[in-house]
Amino acid sequence: MKDLNKYIEHTLLKPEATKEELVKLFDEAVKHKFLGVCINPCNVKFAKEYLKNEHIKIVTVAGFPLGASLNEVKALEAKTAIKNGADEVDMVINVGFLKNKKYDEVRKDIAAVKAACENTVLKVIIETDLLTKEEIVKACLLCTEAKADFVKTSTGFVKNGVGARVEDIELMYKTVSPYGLRVKASAGIRDREKAIEMINAGASRLGTSSGVEIVKQ
Amino acid sequence: MKDLNKYIEHTLLKPEATKEELVKLFDEAVKHKFLGVCINPCNVKFAKEYLKNEHIKIVTVAGFPLGASLNEVKALEAKTAIKNGADEVDMVINVGFLKNKKYDEVRKDIAAVKAACENTVLKVIIETDLLTKEEIVKACLLCTEAKADFVKTSTGFVKNGVGARVEDIELMYKTVSPYGLRVKASAGIRDREKAIEMINAGASRLGTSSGVEIVKQ
Repeated sequence: MKDLNKYIEHTLLKPEATKEELVKLFDEAVKHKFLGVCINPCNVKFAKEYLKNEHIKIVTVAGFPLGASLNEVKALEAKTAIKNGADEVDMVINVGFLKNKKYDEVRKDIAAVKAACENTVLKVIIETDLLTKEEIVKACLLCTEAKADFVKTSTGFVKNGVGARVEDIELMYKTVSPYGLRVKASAGIRDREKAIEMINAGASRLGTSSGVEIVKQ
Repeated sequence: MKDLNKYIEHTLLKPEATKEELVKLFDEAVKHKFLGVCINPCNVKFAKEYLKNEHIKIVTVAGFPLGASLNEVKALEAKTAIKNGADEVDMVINVGFLKNKKYDEVRKDIAAVKAACENTVLKVIIETDLLTKEEIVKACLLCTEAKADFVKTSTGFVKNGVGARVEDIELMYKTVSPYGLRVKASAGIRDREKAIEMINAGASRLGTSSGVEIVKQ
């Protein structure tokens, strides 16, 4: 397996991230030719300016990491991020509503953000650590119905969460690939072996803060 | 120390909270005459409807828990929550900007949400687990300048965070009380002893999911 760098979204989402840490992330992404960087909305403008001459996607988040915001708030977050230079948006599903089988509300939430994204790629984080296998399948189907572009496993902010699992990636890929959606594996991907497992299970993207270690191994 | 219930904002902010768990929270708040409930924005309408005949404040959050959203997104989150029935809003400060000494940006962020809140009480979570003592003081002063109503210690979502500490409450109280702001202690308050320590250190409010245990002891 070569060109692992082309799968990696080099990720820094901790709230206390400083300018120096962001610059390090961007420089590493350039050096290793990563596919993108994944950062918080308040840092999108800076990323766009810093990386303006590079072919690196600027990925940000909406309703992150709880997904418990209103539709219109997530939609505005996506819209303003795109205006500021984001190339892709990773939103978080409403997990509580999914658990209560309020499927229309969950679908509407995703569709509202997709409408705000227009042609910009929308990934939907379903937070697999909190879901049963049945809920994972249902969440994936709602994403297809709402015309999302990707389903994504994890925020990385669940207490004692393990993040992306091979079995979940396989299940997500099996569920959404017939509809043309792709899968992003995120959280807990810390070495080359795990990265390759994720890709073999169906992931087209890897969200990780260990990209440098992964490509060096 | 009696009437501890009058300090308690009975809190449920986990993203996977179901309707049944919310109902339990609301019923407990009524039974024990807690000051308020603190819930995610997507649950405010339901809380307002369920508690319409009770004297219990409905508290929600904005830009929670990372604080890394844009000003206008946090402001819309506050505004829509109030429209849906929220009595108070707890926003999260931009921690990264504070660490980079972008004080004008931090103040502007708080002021934007305060403008959206109008006369509704605004608390500002400064996330003490991530700050130095100097940063805690600076964050508090920025909150006074932006006309917030409360400073609050913690989101409860910091990895390995301890939440409210007596020394931090004392420092926050000393810094903001001359300007008329109050202090909310949150995260890690799990028993009566800790609750009383917080109040004695200057807290006017306690954000906790252990309210029932605290008042029973």
